[in-house]
Amino acid sequence: MIKPKKILKKKEFNLEEYAQGMTDGDIGMLGKAITLVESTKPIHQEFAQELLEHITAKTGKSIRIGITGVPGVGKSTFIERFGKYITSLGKKVAVLAIDPSSEEGRGSILGDKTRMENLSTDPLAFIRPSPTSGSLGGVARKTRESILLCEAWGYEVIMIETVGVGQSETAVHSMVDFFLLLMLSGAGDELQGIKRGIMEMADAIAITKADGENLNPSKIAASNYKRAIHLFPPKSNDWIPRVMHCSAQDNQGITEVWEIITTYINHCTLKGTFQEKRNDQAQFWLYESIQEQLGRYFHENEKVNKELTRLEKQVRLGKISPFVAANQLISLFHNS
Amino acid sequence: MIKPKKILKKKEFNLEEYAQGMTDGDIGMLGKAITLVESTKPIHQEFAQELLEHITAKTGKSIRIGITGVPGVGKSTFIERFGKYITSLGKKVAVLAIDPSSEEGRGSILGDKTRMENLSTDPLAFIRPSPTSGSLGGVARKTRESILLCEAWGYEVIMIETVGVGQSETAVHSMVDFFLLLMLSGAGDELQGIKRGIMEMADAIAITKADGENLNPSKIAASNYKRAIHLFPPKSNDWIPRVMHCSAQDNQGITEVWEIITTYINHCTLKGTFQEKRNDQAQFWLYESIQEQLGRYFHENEKVNKELTRLEKQVRLGKISPFVAANQLISLFHNS
Repeated sequence: MIKPKKILKKKEFNLEEYAQGMTDGDIGMLGKAITLVESTKPIHQEFAQELLEHITAKTGKSIRIGITGVPGVGKSTFIERFGKYITSLGKKVAVLAIDPSSEEGRGSILGDKTRMENLSTDPLAFIRPSPTSGSLGGVARKTRESILLCEAWGYEVIMIETVGVGQSETAVHSMVDFFLLLMLSGAGDELQGIKRGIMEMADAIAITKADGENLNPSKIAASNYKRAIHLFPPKSNDWIPRVMHCSAQDNQGITEVWEIITTYINHCTLKGTFQEKRNDQAQFWLYESIQEQLGRYFHENEKVNKELTRLEKQVRLGKISPFVAANQLISLFHNS
Repeated sequence: MIKPKKILKKKEFNLEEYAQGMTDGDIGMLGKAITLVESTKPIHQEFAQELLEHITAKTGKSIRIGITGVPGVGKSTFIERFGKYITSLGKKVAVLAIDPSSEEGRGSILGDKTRMENLSTDPLAFIRPSPTSGSLGGVARKTRESILLCEAWGYEVIMIETVGVGQSETAVHSMVDFFLLLMLSGAGDELQGIKRGIMEMADAIAITKADGENLNPSKIAASNYKRAIHLFPPKSNDWIPRVMHCSAQDNQGITEVWEIITTYINHCTLKGTFQEKRNDQAQFWLYESIQEQLGRYFHENEKVNKELTRLEKQVRLGKISPFVAANQLISLFHNS
C-alpha cells in the first residue's frame, strides 16, 4: 500500500479551483492534482477520476517521450540538457518517472530535484519524482494519468524516465509516442543490466558520454548498433530506429535527438500511424486497467492471499500443477 | 468458444484406465487425454484436472523445446528431420503446436500429419495439431497441460511449434527449456513478419535452407547474426545464443542443433538455473491462469461485455479515459 506524502482533504479544492489553476498554469495546483491521482484513498481516487473526466478535452496535445537506460548512463544529465534545449525553443516540458521498485525514504529515480538544478528552476519546466512504491500496474496507471494532467496544464513535451532493468519499460513503451534508449559505448559488459527486449522497443538509441577519450569508442558503438538494428524485424510503422552519439557535457548531439523525434512525428503523422498508435495504447490501458482492478480485488481477499502464498510454494516445488492451484484459488475467491 | 472435434463422455474412461494407457504407452489414450484437456465442457475440464493431478509425479522429465519461425522458413521440414534424428537416438519425441489464430476447418499450423509423413508414422513419435481457435491464454494453458500429459506418457523430447508472428511466442517461451528461432538468409526483407522481441528470446538461431546457391548467403547471414547477438543484453543464465545454418534437404546441421541443445542443458544444470527456470515458469503460469480465469468471468458477463464494446470505442476516440471506463465496467461487474 502506498502512502501519499501529503494527505489532501477532498474538499481542500474543488473542480473549479483546479480548472482555474490549470488556466493560470499554476504549477502548485498541478502538483496537488498529481498527488490526488497518486493517493490510494478511495475519496481521493473518486475525485481524481472526476478531475480526469473534466480535463479530457484538454489532453493529448503533447509529444510523449520515454527515456530509458541503466544507472550510470547519465540519464539525469541528458534529460536536463535535453529539457533545457526544449525550453529554449519556448516549449513547456514536464519530466515524470516510473520506478515501481523505489520506496519512500530510499528516494525515487529522480531523487530530489537538485539532480536537475538548472531544469527544475526553469519556469517552463515541471519535474515530478516517481510515485512511491506500489505494484507496477498501479504506478503505471498513476504515471499515465499524470501525463494527462500535465497536458491539461499545457505542457507540450512530456518525458517519462525509467531505469532499463525491469518491466516498467514495457509499461512506458505503451504510453509514449517515442522511445529513446540511452547506452554507453564499449562492447559487451556495459550492457549488463539492460533487459532483453528493450533494444527492440527503441525508436532511437543514443550513445551517451561521447566526449574526450570516449568519443571514438562511442562512434564505433553507434555504427555497430546501426548495423545490428538492420537485422531487427522492421517496426509496423516502417520507422528505422536511429542510432547516434551525444555528450551532455560538451552539449553535442542534443539538438539532433530533438530533430530525430520531430522527424519521427512527421513520419508517423504522414503514415497515419501517430493517432492510431495512441488509440491502440488507450485500448491497451483499458484492458490493463480492468485486469489490474480484477487482480486487486482478488489479492485484497485475505483468505485467498494466504492460500495463494501456500500454493505458490507447492507450485514452485512441482507438487501441484499451476492450473489446478489456480482453480482452487478461484473457487475460494468466489465462495468467500 | 472452442468446440472439441470429438466430444468425450466423462465416463468413457476412468482415471485407472488412463493410468493403464499411460503405462502401456497407448498413443490413442494420450490423444484422448489431450482432447479432454482441450475441451471447454466443465465436466471434461474437471476430469482433466483430476487426471493432471494424478500424473504430477510422472511429469517434468522431458526436454522442452520451442521452435518458431515465419511461414515459409521450413518449420515442418526441419521439425520432421530433427524429430527423426532424435528418434534415431532411441528417444521418444512429441510435437505440439500453438496457433491461437487457427480455426477449425482452416487447419492448424501443422495441418494434417501428412506434412510430416515420416515422423508421424514413426512409432517413437507423437504429433498433435494446435488446439482450435480460442484465446491465447486458453490455448497456451491447454498446450502446457498437453506437455505434462506427453511427459507422463514417457516422451523425452517435446517440441512446441509456433509461428513467429504473434504473441504466442512469449507464451511458448515461458513453457520451454530452450527456444529455437528459424530464419532465412538474405538481409532485411525476409524478416518481414518476425515480431520484434522474438530475436532476443532465442537461445539459438538456425538459418534454414542453407543448401545449393543459398549456402553462401546463409553463412553470411549466420555470421551477421552472430555479431548482432553480442550487442544484445546477456541472458540471466549467461548463455550466449548460438547461431548456425542448416539444411533439412541435405540433412546438414541437424545433429548440431541437438548438440547445441544438450550443451545448453548441461550449461544450465551446472549453473543450477535449469530447475530454477522451470520453477519460475510454474509460478508464472499460476498467476497467468488466475488472471485468465478472472478475465473469463468478467467477459462472460453479458451486460459487462456489451458495455465494454461501447466503452472501448469511446476510449479509442479519446472521449473517455481508459481508467474511468475501466472503473465503470468494474462497478457494473460487481453489481451484476
